[in-house]
Amino acid sequence: MNIMEPLFGFAIDLPPRRARDLLGAVHRQLRSAILDGRLKPGLRLPATRAAAVALGVSRNTVIAAYDLLLSEGYLVARRGSGTFVAENLSPPRRFKARSAAPELDRRLAPFWRALPPLPPARAASFRYDFRIGLSDKASFPFHIWRRLSARALRALSKAPSAYAEPEGRPALRGAIAKHIAFARAVACNAEDIVVTAGAQQAFDLLARILVTPGRTMAAFENPGYPPLRDAFAAAGAAVRPVPVDGEGLVVERLPTEARIVCVTPSHHSPLGPTMSLRRRTALLEFAHARGAAIVEDDYDGEFRFAGRPLDALQTLDRGESVFYVGTFSKSLFPALRLGFVVAPPWARPALIAAKRLTDWHGPVLAQDTLAPFIAEGHLARHLRKMRRVYAERRAILLKALAHHCPGRIVPIPSEAGMHIAARLAGDLRADAVAARAAAAGIGVQSLGAYFNAKPARNGLAFGFGMIQAERIDEGIRRLAEVIR
Amino acid sequence: MNIMEPLFGFAIDLPPRRARDLLGAVHRQLRSAILDGRLKPGLRLPATRAAAVALGVSRNTVIAAYDLLLSEGYLVARRGSGTFVAENLSPPRRFKARSAAPELDRRLAPFWRALPPLPPARAASFRYDFRIGLSDKASFPFHIWRRLSARALRALSKAPSAYAEPEGRPALRGAIAKHIAFARAVACNAEDIVVTAGAQQAFDLLARILVTPGRTMAAFENPGYPPLRDAFAAAGAAVRPVPVDGEGLVVERLPTEARIVCVTPSHHSPLGPTMSLRRRTALLEFAHARGAAIVEDDYDGEFRFAGRPLDALQTLDRGESVFYVGTFSKSLFPALRLGFVVAPPWARPALIAAKRLTDWHGPVLAQDTLAPFIAEGHLARHLRKMRRVYAERRAILLKALAHHCPGRIVPIPSEAGMHIAARLAGDLRADAVAARAAAAGIGVQSLGAYFNAKPARNGLAFGFGMIQAERIDEGIRRLAEVIR
Repeated sequence: MNIMEPLFGFAIDLPPRRARDLLGAVHRQLRSAILDGRLKPGLRLPATRAAAVALGVSRNTVIAAYDLLLSEGYLVARRGSGTFVAENLSPPRRFKARSAAPELDRRLAPFWRALPPLPPARAASFRYDFRIGLSDKASFPFHIWRRLSARALRALSKAPSAYAEPEGRPALRGAIAKHIAFARAVACNAEDIVVTAGAQQAFDLLARILVTPGRTMAAFENPGYPPLRDAFAAAGAAVRPVPVDGEGLVVERLPTEARIVCVTPSHHSPLGPTMSLRRRTALLEFAHARGAAIVEDDYDGEFRFAGRPLDALQTLDRGESVFYVGTFSKSLFPALRLGFVVAPPWARPALIAAKRLTDWHGPVLAQDTLAPFIAEGHLARHLRKMRRVYAERRAILLKALAHHCPGRIVPIPSEAGMHIAARLAGDLRADAVAARAAAAGIGVQSLGAYFNAKPARNGLAFGFGMIQAERIDEGIRRLAEVIR
Repeated sequence: MNIMEPLFGFAIDLPPRRARDLLGAVHRQLRSAILDGRLKPGLRLPATRAAAVALGVSRNTVIAAYDLLLSEGYLVARRGSGTFVAENLSPPRRFKARSAAPELDRRLAPFWRALPPLPPARAASFRYDFRIGLSDKASFPFHIWRRLSARALRALSKAPSAYAEPEGRPALRGAIAKHIAFARAVACNAEDIVVTAGAQQAFDLLARILVTPGRTMAAFENPGYPPLRDAFAAAGAAVRPVPVDGEGLVVERLPTEARIVCVTPSHHSPLGPTMSLRRRTALLEFAHARGAAIVEDDYDGEFRFAGRPLDALQTLDRGESVFYVGTFSKSLFPALRLGFVVAPPWARPALIAAKRLTDWHGPVLAQDTLAPFIAEGHLARHLRKMRRVYAERRAILLKALAHHCPGRIVPIPSEAGMHIAARLAGDLRADAVAARAAAAGIGVQSLGAYFNAKPARNGLAFGFGMIQAERIDEGIRRLAEVIR
């Protein structure tokens, strides 16, 4: 280490003489000194020979450092009179960091300034995991996925470098169209489909193209899935909660000004009922009469355990009002980040342009793996298997609730999906029950967070995507102890 | 086939008697008839026995079809008096499709209504491919990628199903921070980084959080990269072009009201010059004085062939003004769709929330493959190799232009990147030259599309990401014939 106070007017710390990057160290320290104003603009630097002696480095090192700073514009050489710190640099001062109150920084748009911080990622693990929205990967045929993925990578390695289609890979769009025509009776062709990064990106893109900020009113189920509502709020929509009953969204309560209506007709999120046919046709009538668009979020309708599925709104729609949103986060796994929209023709160019502007296109490898996974029948096979697995868990769960918590936790009737909701009877408070359950190793969610307007229904949601069948009864038995 | 006009009042087409889905056919046709009004609400259906005879199917088939329609709500049974088409269905009529003029549909927000349709995806292939923005995959170590990808998939298959971190996988953020600290002297830690779906999503997320629609002015280099500008325009920013000279953006010409300034300081897109240090410090001064944010798009700064890289704006910034955007589309390949932002602390919570709302998080497998690819040194090694490859092509290209097109196509000096721009001398028109070249199998782009304001500079851009070294001279020789 070497300190050279008198010559430059400030200390320069150098590494030991034989260190590898002596030049880098000299260069960096001089540059920092120029940038923060310790070496003032116009100042003449010491001659290289004197600097070398003072620093205890070779003269070549000093010459090289000066040369670098000259080439970078930090120094200027004036013929015959030496080397000077450049004028006009006006190096920015070190301003006070604003990090103390980031939400107040006026450079952020208002919506993002006011946003509460995100809860930390759900790293929690529970001995009895009834959290909702998560699927079981244990039975997923990863060996098939690995083979198809390797094949896709080989094909990619041979293709010339290129940006892909914003609307999604043609083979995947074709496979999705066939799959949902068969599995969900959604009538569409490959060209009706836009592949997205999960359902969330579908919501976001639709909010983009449908919302005129500050003008458009969007109606949502209350209770409802908060990230869906948030995507439209972020795009500048006025967000209106509409109540839900045993037949789904109460269409008669829709504000007449609503120009977007978001619903989960196959399996209400989070309460569970299926929207009745009467309400479906009323909603389509509303959309046509008002010129409104409908976003149909079919997040886990593949899993149906009783009755026969009602037709999707998209199937019933004769007015090109419905955007049908599907996801592979539940049928496969969320890490994949693939979903899709079936869009009416009038919205397709805008939707594709929005996808293009927001991230150009989805990841090619994942798409090129999923396409043959669907086309070769692996998805349908996996869904059949998981339907059996989930049906068994669901039956055990209902039985366990009836047995351990009779009259205290009362399931809300539903016929589909990967979770069931339940009312809490008496003076039990759902938030408190969920907190006490978590402390006892039981992951179960209060319905409170799904309500956009008070009063929130006092209830719990039980997912069975994560918990093995043989652990369910024990988990509910322990929950019964918690609420006793 | 069986036609049963008198009983139902309309024709029902059935498949041959022994066909597999006779029940489905009956069910579907009755349902359609109800939905489109051929069977009116309140109408009493024929008795099952009579219907079976008329249709030539078993009575059980008819009973099952009626039961399905009853369970779906299309029919109602009144005790003792039979089965009726449900009232209150008010089935939507088949409305006229609006597809004829999709851009006029009033359900779209104004920006998306007015948007010109996207050009078709660039499926073109050229014998001599000088298109810009595309990298060479031929030398990419796909065998290493495949191994790391298989490892990531194994780990994923063992982890419980979960949504991942919106800001990106911790290991990837750590690897990127180390990589850019070393390769680009960008000072940051893992927590400063948000992983995005390519640079385009970074632009989009920044536009989201920084633009108040209808209020915020954003300044762009003119010429400049159109998709960057478009992302801010889509978010509602007022977009202002600012001229560029040999030192980059002419900072003195920035409108004082600009609150966002987007620049490509390492290698101007598309002209090529590096922004001078004088302009860099002036831009940082402007940002601090006006409370503006700077978006630094470093899209191909890894490839530098002469001189020494100037410090990134992010490195020079003392005011927390700079968002540094990097991408792996050029250093690896665009199909990957991974990029990142280095964000100042005040904007980080909003940026992560925006990522969460727009697509929750990036694909896990790709991130978990890229992280060890960087951490184990494969990225740095690949970049070193490609720097040599591109340097050779660049030298051949410059020599070929000087030899075959002297005084006609004049390269604009630059020291970095995967393309060079050139002025066209005399009365040659770039758009016409590019069109004639394409017809001759030569892919070369006019600079015209990069100009946001007239007059557009008359020039061409030559990429060398796609063309092999040994084809360059021949391609330019043929281009010389085209312009002769």
